[in-house]
Amino acid sequence: MKLVTYTDKKDESGNTSAGLVWGDWILDIRHLPSIAKRLGIKTLRAPSRFSKGNKTVLDVIARGPETLAELQTLSWRVFNRMKPGTENEGLKRLEKSRLLAPIPKPPTLRDFYAFEEHVKAARAKRGLEMVPEWYEIPVFYYSNPNVIYGPDDEIPIPSYTKALDFELEVACVIGKKGRDIPLEQAESCIAGYTIMNDWSARDIQAKEMKVGLGPAKAKDFATSIGPWLVTPDELEDTKTGRGTYKLEMTARVNGKQVSKGNMASMHWTFPQMIVHASQSVELRVGDVFGSGTVGTGSLVEQQSKRTKWLKPGDNVELAIERLGTLRNRVIEAKAKKAKEEGN
Amino acid sequence: MKLVTYTDKKDESGNTSAGLVWGDWILDIRHLPSIAKRLGIKTLRAPSRFSKGNKTVLDVIARGPETLAELQTLSWRVFNRMKPGTENEGLKRLEKSRLLAPIPKPPTLRDFYAFEEHVKAARAKRGLEMVPEWYEIPVFYYSNPNVIYGPDDEIPIPSYTKALDFELEVACVIGKKGRDIPLEQAESCIAGYTIMNDWSARDIQAKEMKVGLGPAKAKDFATSIGPWLVTPDELEDTKTGRGTYKLEMTARVNGKQVSKGNMASMHWTFPQMIVHASQSVELRVGDVFGSGTVGTGSLVEQQSKRTKWLKPGDNVELAIERLGTLRNRVIEAKAKKAKEEGN
Repeated sequence: MKLVTYTDKKDESGNTSAGLVWGDWILDIRHLPSIAKRLGIKTLRAPSRFSKGNKTVLDVIARGPETLAELQTLSWRVFNRMKPGTENEGLKRLEKSRLLAPIPKPPTLRDFYAFEEHVKAARAKRGLEMVPEWYEIPVFYYSNPNVIYGPDDEIPIPSYTKALDFELEVACVIGKKGRDIPLEQAESCIAGYTIMNDWSARDIQAKEMKVGLGPAKAKDFATSIGPWLVTPDELEDTKTGRGTYKLEMTARVNGKQVSKGNMASMHWTFPQMIVHASQSVELRVGDVFGSGTVGTGSLVEQQSKRTKWLKPGDNVELAIERLGTLRNRVIEAKAKKAKEEGN
Repeated sequence: MKLVTYTDKKDESGNTSAGLVWGDWILDIRHLPSIAKRLGIKTLRAPSRFSKGNKTVLDVIARGPETLAELQTLSWRVFNRMKPGTENEGLKRLEKSRLLAPIPKPPTLRDFYAFEEHVKAARAKRGLEMVPEWYEIPVFYYSNPNVIYGPDDEIPIPSYTKALDFELEVACVIGKKGRDIPLEQAESCIAGYTIMNDWSARDIQAKEMKVGLGPAKAKDFATSIGPWLVTPDELEDTKTGRGTYKLEMTARVNGKQVSKGNMASMHWTFPQMIVHASQSVELRVGDVFGSGTVGTGSLVEQQSKRTKWLKPGDNVELAIERLGTLRNRVIEAKAKKAKEEGN
């Protein structure tokens, strides 16, 4: 399934719904029971699990893996019997909808550092060699979970940077709470995967990293995720023996490809990250785990002395096979406007 | 005012209320309108601001600075007319109550690094000198806002450490949302101050810091705050010219004093941290800002080769003048039990 949080393009009320993407269409999960009934599909046990609530993908996955499995079965039946091409209350054209981040407000946002090629390149830029500790534990940092952008959102350049960069990452979303999760159960805690852009201000990051507490203002102003959350079954045939997936990851800036990597090259896998992160700490449904940047997946690791950072108007497109494309446009800082709003 | 989140010691339902500490008593904010009425105090405008909701201190401060000011005036009047010593629905004995963290679920938890003496000592332990960047910006990291402990809570040692330490910090809580907050307005965004213990696992911290993303598992298993949130007016007479307060900070382990510092020695002040953190990012009501450890305020910076870390049964008491004492006892890891709960 490709799960989306969406709204009608014309709707400015802030109402959102969770839906399933089906070709050029979105099936609204809240209308699934009534559509099923109309199509003569056997009445559901507790149809309110679908018809009530479910404003975002987080609401849907919070209902648990069993409900997700039923959603899958039911939606297949509906899609098999339904004639596409007719817009109605439960079926919306993708082009008339605005997609939001599938998980607009994750309880926590962890970002890991799982691709060896990126870590080597990023450290080399700071004049540092690899450390053995990187191979011992899948290190991460907490970022700000309150500034999540979705597909096609505009990203304002923060007032304090002249070195805005993107980071091409794949993210998993936790679908089952738990702590001290053993490796053999870790994969079953993943609700799905999505693309993540961990926007980074490289000038302030250099300062922050020297002090030693890791990046904070360098990353806390924007993280985009989307366009949808893809459930693991959709990726099954690309699975590698190491517990990751063979999926090409690319980035384009203003249409020009600048990065090319593969999810198969992760040194640390998501199940390993889950084991580590859940030690003595409860993971929550909706927690987002970013992989860290794939090799070549940022400007910083490719730059020469003639560094060109992102500027207003730049279009950044991150694509991962099966997971779609996450597009965002960089715009001027909104500092003044935002300040007025804030006071 | 000293604001508390509390529950009756005998109440195991999980219900909590926000209250005001008055000597050995807690005045429940939700009963304030009915008490005022009984005492013949002029009827309030919109008494429901006090009588409805207000399960935690966060609910109270979320009503805004004006409501807080009215709460103060009203509570003074009530305390002046009320005869203490009579328990009733709105007045509870402190000794019969259990205090929780004043803000049990902050939207975010930032921890700064504001005391030069601690930073110097901690860096020296890792063989590092001070860096000029520390003097340029008040650097912080995000920690896990979902594992907050309160006064007298027991702190389970995480399964993965043999080097548990405490950190004596003062924290401020944001009372007014805003972004790009100028220095002259920053202080007015502070709802109050409390004591914070940023429990730290020094062995995994050493590994994490070498990789460069800062501490995460070293800190994410426990943060305690309390016992109450003290509004800034209570500290006014101790204010220094630099925008901080002259308040002694001490730590005792099993009754023996191990740390002694003063809030006046902060290099970076809370208003400066607010300016920095709010650049291009909205601060939210209830956000917690830890100061970073006061000089001598941890075991790591005092240890010799015969390091003795915290062990099960140890009592750690952090005291800050005017802000009270935050006591916690360290206990064995709960890994097994928690694992069962989590699955």
